[in-house]
Amino acid sequence: MLDQKEVWLNTLKTSTPQEGFELAIKLSRMGVKSTQPNIEILKSLRPKYANDALGLTTASQVIALNFQTVSAANNYWK
Amino acid sequence: MLDQKEVWLNTLKTSTPQEGFELAIKLSRMGVKSTQPNIEILKSLRPKYANDALGLTTASQVIALNFQTVSAANNYWK
Amino acid sequence: MLDQKEVWLNTLKTSTPQEGFELAIKLSRMGVKSTQPNIEILKSLRPKYANDALGLTTASQVIALNFQTVSAANNYWK
Amino acid sequence: MLDQKEVWLNTLKTSTPQEGFELAIKLSRMGVKSTQPNIEILKSLRPKYANDALGLTTASQVIALNFQTVSAANNYWK
Amino acid sequence: MLDQKEVWLNTLKTSTPQEGFELAIKLSRMGVKSTQPNIEILKSLRPKYANDALGLTTASQVIALNFQTVSAANNYWK
Amino acid sequence: MLDQKEVWLNTLKTSTPQEGFELAIKLSRMGVKSTQPNIEILKSLRPKYANDALGLTTASQVIALNFQTVSAANNYWK
Repeated sequence: MLDQKEVWLNTLKTSTPQEGFELAIKLSRMGVKSTQPNIEILKSLRPKYANDALGLTTASQVIALNFQTVSAANNYWK
Repeated sequence: MLDQKEVWLNTLKTSTPQEGFELAIKLSRMGVKSTQPNIEILKSLRPKYANDALGLTTASQVIALNFQTVSAANNYWK
Repeated sequence: MLDQKEVWLNTLKTSTPQEGFELAIKLSRMGVKSTQPNIEILKSLRPKYANDALGLTTASQVIALNFQTVSAANNYWK
Repeated sequence: MLDQKEVWLNTLKTSTPQEGFELAIKLSRMGVKSTQPNIEILKSLRPKYANDALGLTTASQVIALNFQTVSAANNYWK
Repeated sequence: MLDQKEVWLNTLKTSTPQEGFELAIKLSRMGVKSTQPNIEILKSLRPKYANDALGLTTASQVIALNFQTVSAANNYWK
Repeated sequence: MLDQKEVWLNTLKTSTPQEGFELAIKLSRMGVKSTQPNIEILKSLRPKYANDALGLTTASQVIALNFQTVSAANNYWK
């Protein structure tokens, strides 16, 4: 479980689409962190998917899902 | 099947996006629990995906899907 | 193909989010059953994914998708 | 490519949610058929995923996605 | 990258749901082509997933996602 | 993490659906790049999924998800 005391997500609003994409990346990482909170283990696993074609594509897929949410929250920055 | 007597989901409303993310994590876990209700088996499987790069990314993907639902239910906390 | 005579889905409306989640579980199982209607084979496969980390996460993913549909159908129980 | 002369999808409207679920199953199968139009090969592959836990869950996932579309098209049968 | 000079996608509008499904198939193939533009290699890979149960289901999944987009663009042909 | 100084995403608006599809391809690649920023490693991995049937289908899936976002942002170019 994520540390419930630390505030890391106050709003889904961002100034630009690019900042929204960065937020989507952060949400994807917090999803991973909620399952494996141990930073040392996470660091040790990183090379495994960062050097693996399917691992990278799957990571991009999670970001795409979270970017859908952030984009809707910002009314697509219209 | 989940224990239908225990009430664990009264509302999709949360005060903040971060609490919404926590709810998305809970929904993802209840999805797993509905298929494997035995807590001991679940605990024994945990190291398997919590130490596996693709397992962690897939877990993050389920959370992303549930966070889409919770975010829409909260009108993106606008 | 599912038995078209048996009525199992009259409405997507439920009283509470928790009942909606139960319906999402049912829809996920009916999706499986439509591909493999043989109950004995289904039972024999159950231990295989119920004791497999990735199998459980994927099952939770299907439930998350169906819960999106049920939640929208209930206007997120607002 | 699907045979463009045969009409198999006139409308996304159905009378009931259950018929909508049947249509979602059909769309999922037509997606498979568009990639592999050879019925004999399709039949020969069927036991492979119909007896495989992950194959069945993935099939249910495709149905869930198509059921989202059909449900929206029917305004969730409200 | 796709050849940016060739115009292949003028509109998401189609006359019927079936034509919309055909467009979803085309979008799925253009997604593949954007990663592997070499037609000869694509042809050589085709038997690999067209004769593989999981490969076919995954192909159907991509079509389902694109059909969601095309259906929304056509207001579900209401 | 992506280089936050370089501006690469000013808007989700595009003139045509085809340009929107190109943007979806770009978003998918930036998702990969955020996990593996090293261009040399990315280039070395490319043949691996560009010549792999499942890798190509998964890449097309990420593009489909991002195309959903871009299409909504452009009101489906209606």
